[in-house]
Amino acid sequence: MKPRLAYILPNFFTASSIFLGMLSITKASQGEFVIASWLIMIAMIFDGLDGRIARATKTMSNFGAEFDSLADIVAFGVAPAMLIFFFAGDDFGKFGFLVSALYVIFGALRLARFNSTLAVSDPSVFIGLPIPAAASLIAMGVLFFLNYEYESYKVLFLAIMLFAGVLMVSHIRYPSPKKIKISHRFFYRLLVVLTIVASMLYIYSIEGLALLVLGYVLYGPIRASYYLIKKLFSS
Amino acid sequence: MKPRLAYILPNFFTASSIFLGMLSITKASQGEFVIASWLIMIAMIFDGLDGRIARATKTMSNFGAEFDSLADIVAFGVAPAMLIFFFAGDDFGKFGFLVSALYVIFGALRLARFNSTLAVSDPSVFIGLPIPAAASLIAMGVLFFLNYEYESYKVLFLAIMLFAGVLMVSHIRYPSPKKIKISHRFFYRLLVVLTIVASMLYIYSIEGLALLVLGYVLYGPIRASYYLIKKLFSS
Repeated sequence: MKPRLAYILPNFFTASSIFLGMLSITKASQGEFVIASWLIMIAMIFDGLDGRIARATKTMSNFGAEFDSLADIVAFGVAPAMLIFFFAGDDFGKFGFLVSALYVIFGALRLARFNSTLAVSDPSVFIGLPIPAAASLIAMGVLFFLNYEYESYKVLFLAIMLFAGVLMVSHIRYPSPKKIKISHRFFYRLLVVLTIVASMLYIYSIEGLALLVLGYVLYGPIRASYYLIKKLFSS
Repeated sequence: MKPRLAYILPNFFTASSIFLGMLSITKASQGEFVIASWLIMIAMIFDGLDGRIARATKTMSNFGAEFDSLADIVAFGVAPAMLIFFFAGDDFGKFGFLVSALYVIFGALRLARFNSTLAVSDPSVFIGLPIPAAASLIAMGVLFFLNYEYESYKVLFLAIMLFAGVLMVSHIRYPSPKKIKISHRFFYRLLVVLTIVASMLYIYSIEGLALLVLGYVLYGPIRASYYLIKKLFSS
């Protein structure tokens, strides 16, 4: 089966997220941290647009998945790691660099595990924090702290990045937002809620996005703790 | 089948090449181009050490292949691209950055094609220049030119990187050095030749390595041209 022209589009989005990731690294190296952070967030949109459509022939879908995870390690692995390195890590010598490098290694382990165990099927539950969520935690963290001029707490960014790295290689479960099933009645209510959320984001973009990302990242450990405590009390 | 402890080692080498790639990016950003180039070359050794041993269970071998190509895009994609960006690209504005970004995109296309078409089997012929060879062309190019203080021809590096990028996505055939079959008699002669080559490399390290890499990179196009010309004359 020959691939149709339409299947080029998702792969073009994937290439675009590599481009944006590389641009983010160069901007971060020039001290333009706000632009560098937003570029990672834009790459996330492109990343969301690819994938699903790209399931044409078996080979094409394998190709798409491989290309996608290579783009992920550039845009959501190396780019946020270099963002933190240039923003904060430089002040902490070898330790600052090590945290950046570990984040990328953990990100690659997460992507390799995901691709090797679930090659083709599309899971509804992620095992470990997905790398785009880890990257957006870092990017929104930088944007949030720059907005409030909290840069003095730079060591905090190393802690955030290490935390995100460990969550990626953990076995903590995260829901796949695309796969959450909702009832018909709830669908319309959700649309209303989403409109309100979008309106809030229009005014408090940075705070709102940072809160959304933080909520998703903390959901995993909180849910896991809840089940752990429940189990302890029931036995 | 449970993986044996020995299978950790190749994956640890893969993680090390991510570490070296990241270190190379930070060194390049600080203007330490010689160290940055050598780090890419050392990552190549680690890359050579992984792979083959990691064929334990099916899942482990998939995992190893995925992890390996993620490490390749960091150490042989992003690292040489940022090396050239900091070394030369900065002077050429958008064009300089674009060539760096294209190199990474082409590298990712090369890796995705390789992994999706040949997933498990180990080919004896590479289609397109392998990304470690492209990376070492760039690293040795920088070392060679810095050694002879030719830095003024910086635009040349953009040309070299674009050339390497195009060769990666081309369908030009390259031999896999690990798979070249040699006869018993030739084996001992080769050992003598290798000893002489190694001795030369001890004295003329940079020139020798640069020549070896250039020879490999040019072998593909020269071989392809030879067969093309032969075909033209025979018909």
